[in-house]
Amino acid sequence: MSFDTKLKQKQKKMNEIIGGFLPKESSLQKDILDSMAYSITVGGKRLRPILMYETYQLFGNHEKEIYPFLAAIEMIHSYSLVHDDLPAMDNDDYRRGQLTTHKKFGEALGVLTGDALLNYAFEIMSQACLEMKDKMYECVQAMQYISHKAGIYGMIGGQVVDIQSENKSIDLKTLEFIHEHKTAALLEASMVGGAMVGGACEEDIKAIQNIAYKIGLAFQIQDDILDVTSDMKVLGKPVNSDKKNNKSTYVQLVGIEASKDIIKQLSNEAIEALKKLDDNAHFLIEIVEYLIYRKK
Amino acid sequence: MSFDTKLKQKQKKMNEIIGGFLPKESSLQKDILDSMAYSITVGGKRLRPILMYETYQLFGNHEKEIYPFLAAIEMIHSYSLVHDDLPAMDNDDYRRGQLTTHKKFGEALGVLTGDALLNYAFEIMSQACLEMKDKMYECVQAMQYISHKAGIYGMIGGQVVDIQSENKSIDLKTLEFIHEHKTAALLEASMVGGAMVGGACEEDIKAIQNIAYKIGLAFQIQDDILDVTSDMKVLGKPVNSDKKNNKSTYVQLVGIEASKDIIKQLSNEAIEALKKLDDNAHFLIEIVEYLIYRKK
Repeated sequence: MSFDTKLKQKQKKMNEIIGGFLPKESSLQKDILDSMAYSITVGGKRLRPILMYETYQLFGNHEKEIYPFLAAIEMIHSYSLVHDDLPAMDNDDYRRGQLTTHKKFGEALGVLTGDALLNYAFEIMSQACLEMKDKMYECVQAMQYISHKAGIYGMIGGQVVDIQSENKSIDLKTLEFIHEHKTAALLEASMVGGAMVGGACEEDIKAIQNIAYKIGLAFQIQDDILDVTSDMKVLGKPVNSDKKNNKSTYVQLVGIEASKDIIKQLSNEAIEALKKLDDNAHFLIEIVEYLIYRKK
Repeated sequence: MSFDTKLKQKQKKMNEIIGGFLPKESSLQKDILDSMAYSITVGGKRLRPILMYETYQLFGNHEKEIYPFLAAIEMIHSYSLVHDDLPAMDNDDYRRGQLTTHKKFGEALGVLTGDALLNYAFEIMSQACLEMKDKMYECVQAMQYISHKAGIYGMIGGQVVDIQSENKSIDLKTLEFIHEHKTAALLEASMVGGAMVGGACEEDIKAIQNIAYKIGLAFQIQDDILDVTSDMKVLGKPVNSDKKNNKSTYVQLVGIEASKDIIKQLSNEAIEALKKLDDNAHFLIEIVEYLIYRKK
């Protein structure tokens, strides 16, 4: 089976799992359930849940125990996009060719939908912890790690510095901070959370953390490269948007060849470490190669 | 010692505890730590942590174990105010005589500060659950309950229906939904969360849930009454704001006398149930009387 077919199957599986965790019961607050479902189902590659699922598989063998966390990590990712699109932030009317949540449901509901998705992610995870009595510690540990990497010491921290850096020339240290926090942190949360729920030992958790960090950073540098080398038809969004938005990129700060070299080094190290960790990490390695050498 | 002096002492204690849980370490994301601290420290009566603390005291006897939850519940309350004040929502420039968070730090940081406070509340609670190994189940249960009452089935659900009901005449059923969810739910979360971390049995948790529901509803009806009967000097905020904002109130739907009767009945029932539950609930009963019969 080709990688593309396998990936599509996984995405379908993730969509079914996430859909199963969307809130269903409602009374007068029905609109927010609709806007949450809209924000989740308009698309997305489901990279975070797939990375979490595949990492879980290296350690655990009761896959249903990771399901609530797959839904939660995608809800956290979605909430961040819904709030990012608000007029106060990036002010985007479209995402993946569809109206953004606040354009479809109004700005007040845009704010509340993001809040609701973030809150519901923790509602799902707390409930999962309660139900998995034998593995409560591992599940709470995963939830704690995810909260840490989603918050001010992770994604939100990166967003703050990203906003402050607009229209400024920043140094490599600042750009690395943004990349590490804004993007890489949630990819780390996905893989490390998967390992924790799977019951990985401390040493393996550290190895996964290290691997995920490298994948996350390489993923974001590739994003910077695509922004200047791709064309809009392939990328599905405007190219050169970083330059237009006066955002500093790796390409700008170290040049395109050096950026490619860094990606190669990071991804080789991540793949070597994955092979060392588990002989059966084939699909995870394929995903890493896909993420890092993707054309869009 | 007078009730006022006792209350002030408790508020001071809560401020110290909450301050101790505000994030301290920062790198480039320092601004968001400042805006979080600002949003928390500009004021507030600390009712939710006080209710939680006092309820905890009826059951538990290692008070430090409730501290992280006190900070978390106040952060959740604060985040909801920060987002409520945004231009997309109530568009308020001042709260308690001070600039609202987005007016002081900019609108983008207003959105992110709310997100950060909500996320950090769960970061603190998850960490607390990990550290309290002997009581992990009770702590996770409290966190799950808090997340439920803060989300679409609680506070956020109430906010959504509140927004949809502006400039409309609504029926009593809808108004009760708003009151129960927007305000009462987080007061319930405070008291029930306190009981759970304190190790209350299932029956006592149910009793507290029932008591907290009545207190929360009475508290909000009193808010509706104060909006028409108080004057601005006493209330510290404009009166008749509900009418100006075209919001339906209890007073409008059932009349002022019937509203007062409902408050009396709810609070008497809550106080009787508290007495039955514990002979030592004196201060909690005083707080209930203060909340329900307050002048501002």
